Parts: sequence; structure tokens; C-alpha cells
Amino acid sequence: MKRVVIIGSGNVAEALAKAIGASRYELVQIYARNRERGQAIARAVRCACADDPKRIAEADIYLMAVSDRAVPKLSESFDFGDAVVAHTAGSVALGELAPRIRNKGVFYPLQTFTAGRSLELSDVPLFIEGNNDFTVDALAGLAGALSTRVRIADSRQRMRLHLAAVFACNFANHMFAVGQQLLQEYGLPADLIKPLIRETVAKALDSPSAAAVQTGPARRNDYRTRHKHIEMLHNHPELQNLYKNISLNIWETSKKI
Amino acid sequence: MKRVVIIGSGNVAEALAKAIGASRYELVQIYARNRERGQAIARAVRCACADDPKRIAEADIYLMAVSDRAVPKLSESFDFGDAVVAHTAGSVALGELAPRIRNKGVFYPLQTFTAGRSLELSDVPLFIEGNNDFTVDALAGLAGALSTRVRIADSRQRMRLHLAAVFACNFANHMFAVGQQLLQEYGLPADLIKPLIRETVAKALDSPSAAAVQTGPARRNDYRTRHKHIEMLHNHPELQNLYKNISLNIWETSKKI
Repeated sequence: MKRVVIIGSGNVAEALAKAIGASRYELVQIYARNRERGQAIARAVRCACADDPKRIAEADIYLMAVSDRAVPKLSESFDFGDAVVAHTAGSVALGELAPRIRNKGVFYPLQTFTAGRSLELSDVPLFIEGNNDFTVDALAGLAGALSTRVRIADSRQRMRLHLAAVFACNFANHMFAVGQQLLQEYGLPADLIKPLIRETVAKALDSPSAAAVQTGPARRNDYRTRHKHIEMLHNHPELQNLYKNISLNIWETSKKI
Repeated sequence: MKRVVIIGSGNVAEALAKAIGASRYELVQIYARNRERGQAIARAVRCACADDPKRIAEADIYLMAVSDRAVPKLSESFDFGDAVVAHTAGSVALGELAPRIRNKGVFYPLQTFTAGRSLELSDVPLFIEGNNDFTVDALAGLAGALSTRVRIADSRQRMRLHLAAVFACNFANHMFAVGQQLLQEYGLPADLIKPLIRETVAKALDSPSAAAVQTGPARRNDYRTRHKHIEMLHNHPELQNLYKNISLNIWETSKKI
């Protein structure tokens, strides 16, 4: 049984620890500089925990689920020997792992992770990269034990996926947040808008493309409503700006369909 | 049993026709200038259909589910007598209905409607307005037969709801569309991103506010990734612009939390 150590204690580390803990792989340790969070995850998945670099466990695969910036330096801190070492970041190139690591790779889940949420990894696309076949095989094996959607992607492709994900996830969520923020400013409950959000997404997921089901004043090029809305945002110049730019982009895109 | 006529044959007309057809109200007719679409809806809900202004049926309530711009002129075309006449538009004021209509109102569902989708109206917030108590009572009665979430809102409040809805629905959907557009440009299947969209929304709906579960490079103020992404969009100046503005707005909002 192959042994895995997870380095990190953030949301990705937590989700991977839970999934690996429930798989046929052996999760031997959570290594985390943040002792408290590392221990919390280790307790939840019943594995060991360490915060002392000298105590990092032996393993076949080390997954570094740490912040983008921490990857290069942290990967230099250990002698991983012949083990496979992979980071999980969308926008960090394979080459940013320490030069002396022999078997280096990437293990990128195209998903958003939130502390405390339980998440089924089985339909989450996992993108694998490695500097040699041994590494690719090892990571593909682990990925295949967690998800039915495993793909090979080089660093360039992965950055493209991450960019698309920023729009579809981070920016879409911000649009929900702005809608709720406006309702709160107007003294209305933010929950009012939840059925609308639910249906917006259900129809986008049910159709081949979200563009095909776009609705609203911008799609109709309804100049009058757009003008009224921009006036209503006079206290929020930054939201006025977003409103104008997104509306224009919707209209430009719609015309091309 | 109160009689309802729906004027219009768009997505809102279709959804309301289905819901009223299944309620304790009597849907007597679809009146639509677009004969083909009017007949298709009428067939689906088994009611009469007309496209000749002289043939509009007698009713207690007329719901005008037509485009914003068509409301004023179309409402002048008929003598509605003592019937209640309400439009369904978010950003059209009550006063835009023809002056000679005695009992005028608004019947605004805070939802996005798509042709052909069946949609449960029962948890959709319905916002009612009327120029007198008789109208408000009549519309609240009809709304209460369709949804458990009926509220009174004046034209100003309704425009605010509509503005919030444009962000949370139309603009969020556009972010999904941009993510999928980028994947397609890169030769990757747009479906890859669907589990991400599903989880993004599930976590926004499960938490009190979408702002509280915001993730991504902008939330972390990860300048390096932002810079890379903006460079990758060099062929799309309009998307570069969106990326910069939305990222800045996420960061500014996050700092305030």
C-alpha cells in the first residue's frame, strides 16, 4: 500500500486528507507548520501529525497543499530522496519545485475548497503533471483512487484552467456577494435572492453553455434599464464601473452568437 | 373562481401560465401578438389563445408579461374596465401603465425564466404593488396561490431588487460563460468546469453570505497570479479589464470584512 504525506493544513490539504484517508492509499501524516490546524485535520482523518521538519514521515508521495508562494522555499526544506513530490497549485509551474527533487509533479484539483465543508472528490477533475513517467504514473494512480476524472496537463494548460476557474468560481461568487451586499444596504434580507441564484446555476449547468441561457437587460441591450441601474449606483463608483463593463461584455458576446 | 388573462408569450408569460394553470385560479386566455408562441403556451396549459385585440377575453386580472418597453403602449390598447392590470417587470414603474387604467399594479417574480424549463414557483419571492387596496388584495391573492413568499414592494424597492438580481443572476452567469469560453478557446471541454460551478454555488447558498466564502487569488491579494492571468488575456483587452476591476473590487470588499 502506497504511503502519502500531506504537507499543509489549509482547505485543499483538508479535502485531500479526507479523500485519501478514505481511499486504498495510506495517509501516514499531516505535516503542517500551523500545529493547531494540522492536528485538527489529523484527528479528523486519524493519522499522525508533525510540525518539526526532522519528524516528517517517510512516504512514497508527498502532496504539498500550501500557498502558491510557499511552494519553492518549502520544497527545499526536505530531502525527499526518491519519493514523488507534487504541489497542488493552479498557477505554479512544475519547475518551481526545488531543483534537487528527483521526481517532481503537480496534482491540481479543479475545485474550490472551503474549510469544514465535506466534498465528494469523485467527479472533480484532477490534473496531473510529472517530470518523468514514474512520477506521472504514481500521481495518476493516486488520482484514479480519488476521482473518475483524471487528466494529464502541462503547466501551461493548468494555468489556463486556473484562469477559467477564477472567472467561473471566484468572480461568479463575487457577483452573488455584490447582489447580497446591495440588498443589505437597502435593508432587505440577503436570503431573498437565493432561489434566483439556485435557478441561475441550475440552468447554466443544464445547458451546454452558460452563454446560451444568458438573460437580463445587458443581453437585451435594454439601454433604459442599464441607465437607471447605473444611476442607482452613484454611491458606488466601482460597482458602476463593473456594471458598465460587464454589461458591455455581455452584449458584445451575445451579438456574436 | 377568479379569471386571469396573461398578455405576452415570453419566458415569464410561459412560467406564469404554467403556474396559474395549475392553481385554483382560472387561466382563461393567453393574449399574444406572437401567434405561434402564444398558441404553443396555450396548448401546453390548455387554455384559449388570441392575437386580435378585439378578442381579448374578460378577466378579473390581466398580467402583462411583456418586454419593459412594450408596457406603456400595450397597456393603452385595451379598455380593461374595473379589472386589475399588472405588469411583471423589475424596472418599470407602476405609473408607466396607461393613465386610464383604474386598478393598476405590479406582479414581479424575483427569478430568471428560460423557455422550456419547468420551474417551481412556490419558493420564488413575488413582489406586489398596487395603486389601491383592491388591486393589492387581488394581486396578493393570486401571488399567494402561486408562492409562499409574497411581499409588498413599491417601485423604488422593486428596482433595487432588480439591480441586485442583475448582479447575482445575469452577471454571475456571464462569469460562467467567460470561464467556458476560455476553455473552448484553449481546446478544452467546457464541461470540465461544471463541478466547480456546482460547488461554488452550493457553498454560497449554504453560507449566510457569499462574501464570507470568497476564495481565489484576488481574495488572497496574490499579485503574482493576478499578473500572470492578466498577461494570458492579452488577446482579450475587455476581459483583462474585467479581471482587473473585479479583482480589485473583491480585494477592497474583503479588506472590509
